[in-house]
Amino acid sequence: MLGTFTYSNPTRLHFGKDSLEALKEELPKYGDNVQLVYGGGSIKEIGLYEEVIAMLEDAGKNVFEDAGVMPNPTVEKLYGGCEIARGNDVDLILAVGGGSVCDYAKAVSVSAYCDEDPWEKYYVRMEDVDNDIIPVGCVLTMAGTGSEMNGGSVITNHATKQKIGHVFGDNVFPKFSILNPELTFTVPRYQMVAGIFDVMSHILEQYFSGTDDNISDYLSEGLMRSLVHSSRIAVENERDYEARSNIMWAATWALNTLIAKGKETDWMVHMIGQSIGAYTDATHGMTLSAISSAYYRHIMPYGLARFVRFAEVVWDVDAAGRSDEEVASEGIERMETWMREIGLVMSIAELGVTEDMLDGIAEGSFVMEGGYKVLNHDEIVGILRESW
Amino acid sequence: MLGTFTYSNPTRLHFGKDSLEALKEELPKYGDNVQLVYGGGSIKEIGLYEEVIAMLEDAGKNVFEDAGVMPNPTVEKLYGGCEIARGNDVDLILAVGGGSVCDYAKAVSVSAYCDEDPWEKYYVRMEDVDNDIIPVGCVLTMAGTGSEMNGGSVITNHATKQKIGHVFGDNVFPKFSILNPELTFTVPRYQMVAGIFDVMSHILEQYFSGTDDNISDYLSEGLMRSLVHSSRIAVENERDYEARSNIMWAATWALNTLIAKGKETDWMVHMIGQSIGAYTDATHGMTLSAISSAYYRHIMPYGLARFVRFAEVVWDVDAAGRSDEEVASEGIERMETWMREIGLVMSIAELGVTEDMLDGIAEGSFVMEGGYKVLNHDEIVGILRESW
Repeated sequence: MLGTFTYSNPTRLHFGKDSLEALKEELPKYGDNVQLVYGGGSIKEIGLYEEVIAMLEDAGKNVFEDAGVMPNPTVEKLYGGCEIARGNDVDLILAVGGGSVCDYAKAVSVSAYCDEDPWEKYYVRMEDVDNDIIPVGCVLTMAGTGSEMNGGSVITNHATKQKIGHVFGDNVFPKFSILNPELTFTVPRYQMVAGIFDVMSHILEQYFSGTDDNISDYLSEGLMRSLVHSSRIAVENERDYEARSNIMWAATWALNTLIAKGKETDWMVHMIGQSIGAYTDATHGMTLSAISSAYYRHIMPYGLARFVRFAEVVWDVDAAGRSDEEVASEGIERMETWMREIGLVMSIAELGVTEDMLDGIAEGSFVMEGGYKVLNHDEIVGILRESW
Repeated sequence: MLGTFTYSNPTRLHFGKDSLEALKEELPKYGDNVQLVYGGGSIKEIGLYEEVIAMLEDAGKNVFEDAGVMPNPTVEKLYGGCEIARGNDVDLILAVGGGSVCDYAKAVSVSAYCDEDPWEKYYVRMEDVDNDIIPVGCVLTMAGTGSEMNGGSVITNHATKQKIGHVFGDNVFPKFSILNPELTFTVPRYQMVAGIFDVMSHILEQYFSGTDDNISDYLSEGLMRSLVHSSRIAVENERDYEARSNIMWAATWALNTLIAKGKETDWMVHMIGQSIGAYTDATHGMTLSAISSAYYRHIMPYGLARFVRFAEVVWDVDAAGRSDEEVASEGIERMETWMREIGLVMSIAELGVTEDMLDGIAEGSFVMEGGYKVLNHDEIVGILRESW
């Protein structure tokens, strides 16, 4: 049942090959001081950095660079970013990069004027924002996290071995995001397929919850069918614009709150995956793919009807004359076949997880209660062992 | 291909049984003078009028009533509404009713400060708005038009026999809309099923265009599957909250620009339907249902592959060992069966169309060019005759 909710998504999206041009109409809306946030320098290799700098200069902005955002942005990096923002009276944080860069920009946005430790307040205690928020804009170079149109922001604390995501409200959503699918062409294949599975996992973790009939599930099925279709084309030809644009758009709509409406949502794959990430620094999407097979086989008996529907609608499994268990199992098998086909990591050992980490990873997995089965410690360890 | 576009939808939606409460948080955002727009008084019968008036009074607003908005709002009514808005320095137009009431509110919103005849400027010449716009909020009592989250506004000029819709930009979208599915329970069945087909037609007219692979088509298929499913439940039990809430949410997403992304879009059924409406004042959704069967059979040969996909994905037609024509035809047959099942009007004669109107209706149908076949006058007359 859809229930009672508010839907508000104020992010303005500029999509397409020429979408960077929209920066010219967005920049004048903000003050002169721009904090330019990016990662390891790949945006320089593809010429994007120079383009953005030229547009910032043409708009008369003072640019304060904040480079070196890592794939799993750390709390120490966040503190540094806050100093840049406060120290330069920043009017706009412009994130140029993938989901981590967007996540980090939002973290700085809410933390710069926080009068206590923002890690404690916004990530450990998950409080609402009650201080000034610096507007964020994004130029996205990777598809996956959906961070370009939501309030999600994941920060990692290596000292405490915690990787925590806070989903902030719509006052923290990027004011605008620029999505040019061509910018994703040069993303390494490993990152591309990890991003694709991040999208798939976002959809799965909302879809596999609840028992009733909800339009969100139908939209999720459409998104999954499109994503599976386009991902197969993209791994054949990474420069297929149509496939990459569909994947980029799917990523946005998989996690911008729409398909969660009326859903309890599961999120355990993300919780376990993030804990693996805190221990190994492995690529986010691969931490999800490595455990998904074992996770879904484990919860299947508790949500069998939904798994049957998943098999039939998303994977075109023919149910005629077969038991629910058989149909549901074939759905998961077809998903696994697709996962192997596009080159996802399906073993946590490959990600650097070692035997001695298992208890810690399970302990660090925040247990959510919206899915078909509320997991206990031993079940999480069991799923990790099955994912070896 | 998704192409280049901007997606921005600033409407804040409050959904659910208790969503009227959200009016208390929305009203303080606007000035004191509120133009209360509604239709023929059904909102008084269900007690909604009293509730809204009480909330407006509690918020200290001066209320200027603008009642009697007709199902097809006229240009004369629009002129009157502009006088109320201008004469009372209105700060917010609050539309309480169905799609026509919302459409009319948006028309007044852009027209009140137009320095020439708004009918000529915004409907006949379709110009962009360059004058002050009065903010609009909606409390929706019917599901169908999608007017609660878009810039669409249809106005009828009986003198010239024109019914014209202008799709305004996001600066004209309602600032907020309140969607309580329970308010739709008391809508007469005829209006309910007409609304359902309006939604279906919005999706169909975006889906049946283009040949390439676009995520919008997958989302459309999900919406159609959900709508067909929920509509069957709603005609059995009009008070099934789950079905009515899914239908209401489908209506919003069928026409809030999302599923048009990357699509050329057809819209000929709406063009012909609106022309029928201008001649007969018939219920909008029924003007669409009455001609859809003949229309889709007429264009099927020109977009056969899409009709085959429609049959398989939306109507679960088994394609094995059959020709594309057979599969596509069975898809349309199943749609017709569903249309009869839920009680739609499938004959223009039943709507009051007479032989002498046919040429005029065809002449008044604005010919769009995004679909599989650009229609000429004789083809439109032919479709009308097939719809007898």
